[in-house]
Amino acid sequence: MTTPHFKKLVIHGVGLLGGSVGLAVRKAGIAERVIGLGRSTERLERAKTLEAIDELSIDPEQALGQADALLLAVPPREIRRTFRIFGPLLNPGTFVTDVGSVKHRLVNEAESALPEGIQFIGSHPMAGSENSGVEHATGDFFTGSTSILTPTFHTKQEALKTGREFWQALGANVLVLSPEEHDEILAGISHLPHLIAAALIQSICRETNSMDLIRNLAGGGLRDTTRIAAAETETWKQIFSENKDLILRRLDACEVVLQEWRSALEMKDPAGLDAELERLWIEGRNARRALNPDGS
Amino acid sequence: MTTPHFKKLVIHGVGLLGGSVGLAVRKAGIAERVIGLGRSTERLERAKTLEAIDELSIDPEQALGQADALLLAVPPREIRRTFRIFGPLLNPGTFVTDVGSVKHRLVNEAESALPEGIQFIGSHPMAGSENSGVEHATGDFFTGSTSILTPTFHTKQEALKTGREFWQALGANVLVLSPEEHDEILAGISHLPHLIAAALIQSICRETNSMDLIRNLAGGGLRDTTRIAAAETETWKQIFSENKDLILRRLDACEVVLQEWRSALEMKDPAGLDAELERLWIEGRNARRALNPDGS
Repeated sequence: MTTPHFKKLVIHGVGLLGGSVGLAVRKAGIAERVIGLGRSTERLERAKTLEAIDELSIDPEQALGQADALLLAVPPREIRRTFRIFGPLLNPGTFVTDVGSVKHRLVNEAESALPEGIQFIGSHPMAGSENSGVEHATGDFFTGSTSILTPTFHTKQEALKTGREFWQALGANVLVLSPEEHDEILAGISHLPHLIAAALIQSICRETNSMDLIRNLAGGGLRDTTRIAAAETETWKQIFSENKDLILRRLDACEVVLQEWRSALEMKDPAGLDAELERLWIEGRNARRALNPDGS
Repeated sequence: MTTPHFKKLVIHGVGLLGGSVGLAVRKAGIAERVIGLGRSTERLERAKTLEAIDELSIDPEQALGQADALLLAVPPREIRRTFRIFGPLLNPGTFVTDVGSVKHRLVNEAESALPEGIQFIGSHPMAGSENSGVEHATGDFFTGSTSILTPTFHTKQEALKTGREFWQALGANVLVLSPEEHDEILAGISHLPHLIAAALIQSICRETNSMDLIRNLAGGGLRDTTRIAAAETETWKQIFSENKDLILRRLDACEVVLQEWRSALEMKDPAGLDAELERLWIEGRNARRALNPDGS
């Protein structure tokens, strides 16, 4: 396996993901200098204290001078808007990738906004946590996780190769999907579950007069089912917004199933009720078990 | 704290819950003999091998002769149907309780079907797992958990007192609710989440042609959110059936919230879209955090 080597890697956005990339890159020794770029020095100072970055900057022009690699680790809509601003500041041949959880619009924009000589590949490192902030960043955050690369017809082979080596050097397994395939899969396995978890806990807690009782009695089931609803607002708002059409399609599919549950529960005939509830439960049970045959 | 003492405790149904009660009762030494009662000897033999019971029986009349305590640990609809069958076989003064997850219909039936001198109190030990079967039973299954007791106007004070001491002797905290309050709370914090977890994984896996990709990419979020959909079919089918009216009301409330998410995602105006997504996400996030301020 070839390991990439950068003279100067700029990380734009040093939260949980950007900070973890900084720690992992420094641990793997694949960049001579890691610069944290952001809007305010406060978070950058924390990242520097935690040794996730070597230097910090709030000036894109200064930070990107002499950079040969740029990782965009802000929420997905901000990444998309960044290409047109950072594009003119990048050195020819610079490797550019990102951590955005929605790829189609973002990759389109990168391809139309970045100058010709830039080596861009879209990435989605599928490591995460309901925690956020650089305080939770770790140098082995990507170990054993999967990073998806999303090349298109326009992607340079060199960019795809560097992207693959970059994430592998950080301990991740790499999977290649088109941006469209990526967004469709993620709408199902990540975005819809976040929406459903939120809606479930909203509906349970809204207008309740027994919040103490709910808190006291909530078991592992409710806690597990709604855990991801506690995730960071800005990122999730932008993910929902960037992938809204595909999420709506997944919501349609979920509501079809909910309607079947409703029809079952409304059945007056006890034998029919029983048969329908059994059919629906077994379908879900088998699906969940197929997801994870070892039971975890 | 007074500890109850039984000469002969019969446990009807020795799965995860019944088996755990057997192990915990024997550990706490609150019964001289524990008899497992069931329909087939196979499961009972396993329970005996695991020392969850002292003796086994498939004959209710034989098992219940000289019994002074009976725990019903079969699925909730079966518990309900059992009162009329076991009632005539019970000795006067026998303490009877159960583990049913739905209480209103069950307690009503107990009060109309059991003979006058029986000491009945409805119980719902809120300890559980997505595993089932006596193989997963443990003697500390109830330690630190909450058992809900559901007395009515007709409940004898002696039965309530014994029920409280029984679950406390097994390590549980006891909470008292009316059967109706219990079913309403549980519809929200347990039954609806199970239905939603099932519908979510059903909708993701139904008609997919990329099950391998889903399995490969599914992160902790999807796994957590749908874990309870893998639970045992017969019990959950009966819970849904026994509490269907209240579950339908909770499903109504959840669908109101889902409709708000849909309306938000369908908004054409970017500022409105953003504001609505933020409002909805923050409501869910705050609700989830209120559930569990320590972040677990």
